[in-house]
Amino acid sequence: MKTDIEIAQASQMLPIADIASKLDILPEELEPYGRYKAKISEKIYSRLADRPDGKLILVTAINPTPAGEGKTTTTVGLGQAMAKIGKKAVIALREPSLGPVFGIKGGAAGGGYSQVVPMEDINLHFTGDMHAITAANNLLCAIIDNHLQQGNTLGIDPRRILIKRCLDMNDRALRNVIVGLGGKVNGVPREDGFMITVASEVMAILCLASDLTDLKKRLGEILVAYTYAGKPVFARDLQVDGAMAALLKDALKPNLVQTLENTPALMHGGPFANIAHGCNSVRATRLALKLGDYCITEAGFGSDLGAEKFLDIKCRYAGLSPSAIVIVATMRALKYNGGVAKTDVSAPNVEALRKGLVNLQAHVENMQKYGVPVVVAINRFYTDTEEEIAVLSDFCEKSGCRFALSEVFALGGDGGVDLAKKVVEACQQPSHYKPLYDTALPIKEKIEAIAKNIYGAGEVLYAPAAEKMIGEIERLEKADLPICIAKTQYSLSDDPTKLGRPAGFTITVRDIRLNAGAGFIVALTGDIMTMPGLPKMPAAYKIDVDSQGNISGLF
Amino acid sequence: MKTDIEIAQASQMLPIADIASKLDILPEELEPYGRYKAKISEKIYSRLADRPDGKLILVTAINPTPAGEGKTTTTVGLGQAMAKIGKKAVIALREPSLGPVFGIKGGAAGGGYSQVVPMEDINLHFTGDMHAITAANNLLCAIIDNHLQQGNTLGIDPRRILIKRCLDMNDRALRNVIVGLGGKVNGVPREDGFMITVASEVMAILCLASDLTDLKKRLGEILVAYTYAGKPVFARDLQVDGAMAALLKDALKPNLVQTLENTPALMHGGPFANIAHGCNSVRATRLALKLGDYCITEAGFGSDLGAEKFLDIKCRYAGLSPSAIVIVATMRALKYNGGVAKTDVSAPNVEALRKGLVNLQAHVENMQKYGVPVVVAINRFYTDTEEEIAVLSDFCEKSGCRFALSEVFALGGDGGVDLAKKVVEACQQPSHYKPLYDTALPIKEKIEAIAKNIYGAGEVLYAPAAEKMIGEIERLEKADLPICIAKTQYSLSDDPTKLGRPAGFTITVRDIRLNAGAGFIVALTGDIMTMPGLPKMPAAYKIDVDSQGNISGLF
Repeated sequence: MKTDIEIAQASQMLPIADIASKLDILPEELEPYGRYKAKISEKIYSRLADRPDGKLILVTAINPTPAGEGKTTTTVGLGQAMAKIGKKAVIALREPSLGPVFGIKGGAAGGGYSQVVPMEDINLHFTGDMHAITAANNLLCAIIDNHLQQGNTLGIDPRRILIKRCLDMNDRALRNVIVGLGGKVNGVPREDGFMITVASEVMAILCLASDLTDLKKRLGEILVAYTYAGKPVFARDLQVDGAMAALLKDALKPNLVQTLENTPALMHGGPFANIAHGCNSVRATRLALKLGDYCITEAGFGSDLGAEKFLDIKCRYAGLSPSAIVIVATMRALKYNGGVAKTDVSAPNVEALRKGLVNLQAHVENMQKYGVPVVVAINRFYTDTEEEIAVLSDFCEKSGCRFALSEVFALGGDGGVDLAKKVVEACQQPSHYKPLYDTALPIKEKIEAIAKNIYGAGEVLYAPAAEKMIGEIERLEKADLPICIAKTQYSLSDDPTKLGRPAGFTITVRDIRLNAGAGFIVALTGDIMTMPGLPKMPAAYKIDVDSQGNISGLF
Repeated sequence: MKTDIEIAQASQMLPIADIASKLDILPEELEPYGRYKAKISEKIYSRLADRPDGKLILVTAINPTPAGEGKTTTTVGLGQAMAKIGKKAVIALREPSLGPVFGIKGGAAGGGYSQVVPMEDINLHFTGDMHAITAANNLLCAIIDNHLQQGNTLGIDPRRILIKRCLDMNDRALRNVIVGLGGKVNGVPREDGFMITVASEVMAILCLASDLTDLKKRLGEILVAYTYAGKPVFARDLQVDGAMAALLKDALKPNLVQTLENTPALMHGGPFANIAHGCNSVRATRLALKLGDYCITEAGFGSDLGAEKFLDIKCRYAGLSPSAIVIVATMRALKYNGGVAKTDVSAPNVEALRKGLVNLQAHVENMQKYGVPVVVAINRFYTDTEEEIAVLSDFCEKSGCRFALSEVFALGGDGGVDLAKKVVEACQQPSHYKPLYDTALPIKEKIEAIAKNIYGAGEVLYAPAAEKMIGEIERLEKADLPICIAKTQYSLSDDPTKLGRPAGFTITVRDIRLNAGAGFIVALTGDIMTMPGLPKMPAAYKIDVDSQGNISGLF
């Protein structure tokens, strides 16, 4: 069996100019980065402003398990399958981060015969967006520390600086650091830390900005610190919003690539789905809706994290209205949720499947609460039995959602034809999308709306730090922002060991952060990692390049 | 008077494909990055292997002064002027670093009517080379700290880790840090620090590598640490050379841009000229020699730093032989060297000029020691008097070098015609290039060869740390590498306040470092800054972008 990278390297890519031209992108709107990647310039937005939008399809999943679900693979495969049934689809994905590429998880370009290519470029530097975000964030940090050093006229309290430096790397040694050591000429010593770039507020801002003007405005609104007198300091107070926006001007342009079957894909932005909102950029999604009759996009982790934020944050800000939601699951993952050990999920076990179905049921009900038609996609493995499939099909019928088996990993678009048909059917059904909560509600009511309706929590407790910050946000008159809950992806609850569908549990909000630039309030539950570490055997050990520039070891 | 960025934005750029085609670069050898930048693929090297090389011209300068010399401007202007006299020239420059762009110095794309464009892109992310180097260096560092965390099977002594993380930013607070704080799951605490990316050994390696195979070999040879038992640990021992090379595969390809007059320019690599060797890449220089009849390149700071390293490190490794050397000076800088205060250098002052000429004389003699014909280029200011010019002309005649006035800042290529003619004449003269010292000599003899012959030192002293490291390098059998002296750029001596031509002084080698991957031994004199700081009013404050993506405030 071929590896992902072998399949990708054997594929016949079309020049990116050909992909663009089939999408009716004008040559002067295309900014090529090599032969097979391009950015799309600002000009296209005004030209297409009056064109009607296509249908928006969100791909989400059950809670991730070690068995793997294949959400990106399904998203790419569905895009390919749409072409097989004669529909014009554009895929809108997030960009990979180098951290997981060199760590455990690997890249984020799909798998098998449903990948976006050139996968090596996409998984490494791509068009430099991550690096631009890193630079913009770190310029802000350098300016803050320089302000302390050069007299601190704003009176910033070095103990209350909220913004951390970032790197697009898994590097646990940078989680907690002390900077500014070495005496007077070397800065003001203080505690600090690094995040991975995708966890930064700048990344969230890039993904939510409607245009360059809005980007700069949001950058200026980043809450960076408090003064000794307790006054908030924003990035605009440090006169750095212009330079940050200048660093991001190209990064704001969506990237065009293609799938193994030459289906167009916009890959743009990649915020974490816990600390941030976990969706690709508003700019790319809007463009995909103009360019295709169907825009197929995904959101990070399960429906409780990425999809909830897609529906309550991104769609709200961008004025988007999804026509259908695909929930990806595997029999193996459902059996795992039914209590079967990771090593035994391949064995037939209808009982465990029935037990684990409660997890899928929660995600189906979650998405139905938003008024959008749901399709369940089972990413099929050869170990799945007919009996198991019948159980699942029966469950979906009872749950009022469509159901399709997907074999896009092994067969590419051909393996997703049934799924594509079901999705098109779902899109013909009326969608009554509405967000879960009104942003005008008090902060706690918004948090509880998510915790109770989506997670299934019985109550929400607040640590003193969280209570204090809620008051602070109200004083700053920023309480009317949507909520972004940082929670483990492995469970519907805030305890990663609680599989299936826990009920009546308590969610504890440990702390609250104001991402005034991105435009949401982060409620932190559990221990949320914003700088991952490398494993004992990092993927980096296997990655190599030969004398001709051919890369191996990426996955 | 227009600013540099206004001039650049008003220029008529040709599509980069047109620039490439005039140079006989095949379409399939060009990898465009937007419309006006491109990388040139590996394939071209084998196609052009048998083509004879053009003439190699190095542009260097006297010691930098606050009055400014305009070396990059002269290099770009000379390239433009060559076209005016019907010669096919290709310029080979270093890439700018974001640190100075946001700090005091500004960008590095020339000035006035002698600039490379698009200056905004070049001065910001360009084609991502700096970011790739940052990522490769920081991957190595993350792998080192992860090795400590995951059991430290190599027995690395956390107190003897030699490689620092880097950022392409002026950020003094990162000079001295403690990483790995926060308890067992957050790494092994240790002292650490960040360099600016251009000061990293990875940057030096990228610039000296002859191809991808050589790049990977050099990356593997980076000396990263010592074990508790005192044994050296190289990057290859950490199995990270392959992944680092994969990150750098595109960064190794030279970047093609153009000047305001559409002269082709390869901008590639940008190592510091103190801690590293201060020249653009071997790959770009070799390619420029194949593509043009004249390749015009520059090296950092004065002839004592960049040019010495160009001649003794880069030319030696790459088998290059320069045909002529241009030394750039200004009347104002010479008067400053003659003891005039910065504020008074515009006033006519023949006496100060005569006094300051000793600095120029040292640089002329330095370059003549390598057997290469010298041309002195005076970057003319309107305050220069005829009498001053006569003094200088007379001096050059007596010194056995050609002399030309250059007005390329104000007039572009037209202002450099005389300089271009003198350079062509110099190239017709036989060049007898030979390096200053034999690498087989003992380390101290090589250091003394540079200190006495080029700097004018009377003796060299070694601190105990330096003595110890010399012994260590001999034990590692790496003593036969060329020397890279890290010294202040402001004086021929190691004391930045000694202007003119100090003589008989003592140079103190404080420490020695082995850059086994780059292939040189660094001798540190004085306090060499590898991470600059931001000034009280950073350039970043003025940089902005409008709603249409037009950038302002870069210089």
